Amino acid sequence: MDALGHHLLIELYGCDAEILNDCERIEKVMNAAALLANAHILESAFHQFNPHGISGVVIIAESHFSIHTWPEHGYAAVDIFTCGDDLRPDLAYNYMINHFKAKSSVIVEMKRGVIPLPVLTAEQFLTTQGLIEKSREAVVCRKGR
Amino acid sequence: MDALGHHLLIELYGCDAEILNDCERIEKVMNAAALLANAHILESAFHQFNPHGISGVVIIAESHFSIHTWPEHGYAAVDIFTCGDDLRPDLAYNYMINHFKAKSSVIVEMKRGVIPLPVLTAEQFLTTQGLIEKSREAVVCRKGR
Repeated sequence: MDALGHHLLIELYGCDAEILNDCERIEKVMNAAALLANAHILESAFHQFNPHGISGVVIIAESHFSIHTWPEHGYAAVDIFTCGDDLRPDLAYNYMINHFKAKSSVIVEMKRGVIPLPVLTAEQFLTTQGLIEKSREAVVCRKGR
Repeated sequence: MDALGHHLLIELYGCDAEILNDCERIEKVMNAAALLANAHILESAFHQFNPHGISGVVIIAESHFSIHTWPEHGYAAVDIFTCGDDLRPDLAYNYMINHFKAKSSVIVEMKRGVIPLPVLTAEQFLTTQGLIEKSREAVVCRKGR
């Protein structure tokens, strides 16, 4: 099913606490991860909290990367929201896991903006049915070889 | 179950296309929604795309609000990521629905950063069991009234 956006919600556990509290380093990792994913960076904004924790967002032409860290728990919540088919969020994910030294991770993959297809006319429906029949015949052919 | 972060993934359908392409207006709505939710705004960054569409993020002390719009589909993907118990994302959600004139919406609510509790010793376990028994007695009492 097609969707306008593709959203990875990533939980990184057992990360290096010192790295998760290093704002400059996290901003570099997140920007490098975005470039590695083939994204086009528009703006990057990161904040350090007291006594610990970082929040940051990289706005890309294809949506955004975000991170929130809890160094005291070795935990980071990362989101990679993209649109289009040219991006490689998997490369960004691997890069982040290595650079934050995460011991384990969980990913939830969400489709955002699943827009209903237009309702077909009777004629379009029959044509579609015809195409489906033809594709079935083709499958049978292929199986027979 | 306790979590460090609380994340609402909001799909807004059937919105006003003109509003979804008005960068200044969207930034105002998102900032007002963040304030209404009792969040503390740190930074706000919004971008207009050609020929249409807006991406924007409001970084708050309690995490972030983000939006990506597809005016041609009347669709907006909104995320409200918060931590702490003092925020009211529900108020922000209602405000956005009204201001974008969304005809329908879908929300997915995610817990981010569910950190395992420490393992109890045998003594702690028995104490906890005792507390559970006491709380059961209290419930029975309350029911009996």
